[in-house]
Amino acid sequence: MKRSERIVAMTHHFKENPRKLISLPYFVDSFQAAKSSVSEDIDIIDEMFQSLGIGRIETTAGASGGVRYIPDFNHDQGRQFIDRLIHVLEDPNRILPGGYVYMSDILGDYNYIRETGKVFGAAFKDVDLDYIVTVATKGIPLAYAVAEVLNVPVVIIRRDPKVTEGSTVSINYVSGSSRKIQTMALAKRSIQEESNVLLIDDFMKAGGTIKGMENLMQEFNATVKGIAVLAEAEDEDEERRVEDYVSLLKIQEVNERSGAIKVIPGNYFNS
Amino acid sequence: MKRSERIVAMTHHFKENPRKLISLPYFVDSFQAAKSSVSEDIDIIDEMFQSLGIGRIETTAGASGGVRYIPDFNHDQGRQFIDRLIHVLEDPNRILPGGYVYMSDILGDYNYIRETGKVFGAAFKDVDLDYIVTVATKGIPLAYAVAEVLNVPVVIIRRDPKVTEGSTVSINYVSGSSRKIQTMALAKRSIQEESNVLLIDDFMKAGGTIKGMENLMQEFNATVKGIAVLAEAEDEDEERRVEDYVSLLKIQEVNERSGAIKVIPGNYFNS
Repeated sequence: MKRSERIVAMTHHFKENPRKLISLPYFVDSFQAAKSSVSEDIDIIDEMFQSLGIGRIETTAGASGGVRYIPDFNHDQGRQFIDRLIHVLEDPNRILPGGYVYMSDILGDYNYIRETGKVFGAAFKDVDLDYIVTVATKGIPLAYAVAEVLNVPVVIIRRDPKVTEGSTVSINYVSGSSRKIQTMALAKRSIQEESNVLLIDDFMKAGGTIKGMENLMQEFNATVKGIAVLAEAEDEDEERRVEDYVSLLKIQEVNERSGAIKVIPGNYFNS
Repeated sequence: MKRSERIVAMTHHFKENPRKLISLPYFVDSFQAAKSSVSEDIDIIDEMFQSLGIGRIETTAGASGGVRYIPDFNHDQGRQFIDRLIHVLEDPNRILPGGYVYMSDILGDYNYIRETGKVFGAAFKDVDLDYIVTVATKGIPLAYAVAEVLNVPVVIIRRDPKVTEGSTVSINYVSGSSRKIQTMALAKRSIQEESNVLLIDDFMKAGGTIKGMENLMQEFNATVKGIAVLAEAEDEDEERRVEDYVSLLKIQEVNERSGAIKVIPGNYFNS
């Protein structure tokens, strides 16, 4: 097999298996190629991935060693993506009665979801995680997109425990926007004790839902290592209940009467 | 830029943009390479993708022409994946009270979800689709994984209409397993009239939920072009209400007392 052919197959393999350790003999056997050739192939891929701003190939020496693709996403590319998203969001037709912003079409488009996953993946790439935890419904695609980058399983908290998940732990919490008491539940066997988790949701206003997720994680003795929200909104009436989080968008103003929406980049882009 | 470097960048680009038309000048400009060199690169990638069983690069001639990566997934590879999945599923520890099978961990693992998306993507690759439609909660990751392959937006039907989605259309339906009347709702602006849709869910027994989705689609004058379920279960008491569907797994027996689970490949593998 020629170098160019091996490079197609290996680039494909790395992109399908982010963060998984692959032994060099695996490639050597698959391609019937010399180890030195495979090493050179990997150097070429590594350099190109770095110059594309999509991560690097990490090499571990020794008997249990191998290579591993660690995805990344260049900060500038992330910012360009968010600027595009802001442009799409600041459309007066998105304003719904009550001053909400229609985002379901954006959350339904995998092209946006994939990029969002890359930005969050880069934001939390150095955090040691066992699970990515979200709450049904809208955070789910975001959670999977980040899970794809970080190679970590997703756990979904539900508002309505289902018989098909076995016994559950549930808590009550006060939703910030509606001030209503709500329930969230998680199957007992979905998280191992003493795990490290990343919480993710599509939207945060007063932070009641995220606070509820934090409380539920305590029931599993899990440590919340990070909080990621796609969009946050300012809430003048309330004190925010969550301090330390990463947001990609901040909705500053939604004016039903004038039809004005003002969205700025979230705190991830502050530095 | 050398051929091997261009091939890394182009393989990456194709895999990130399935089914999107890319003009040759885009690559020519990006790499400052001759058109003939880029064409040769594409031929190499095309041949390698075909030999890996992951699809092909389609070339369209003319002024508005270009190249497009059409993903596919070799039937044998799909079958191997399903055999692995069956092995994981046939673990007596998965049996829950009531004879349900715990699958949340599988649905939470992107490695399984990605492969499932590829198999369904291959099953429906020649169907002209405008949307992939699922119902909250467990079908959602499957829907996105298929959407990634087919480059089609996802629409999520909810059991509880939310104020943040604007006006909704809702219907009542009878859930097959519980015989209870339930509601499903979809935001009016989420689907354009006269669209072609693929329905997808994680599990089907009597087919009540899928039937409900079909009825809801009628309200949007949408045409159901296909139905995909990850796992179906035999239901002796009921007549199945859905005829034409693709399943990847069939749960034949769950015996709470003996701890036996019997799972076989679904109807996609019958031919």
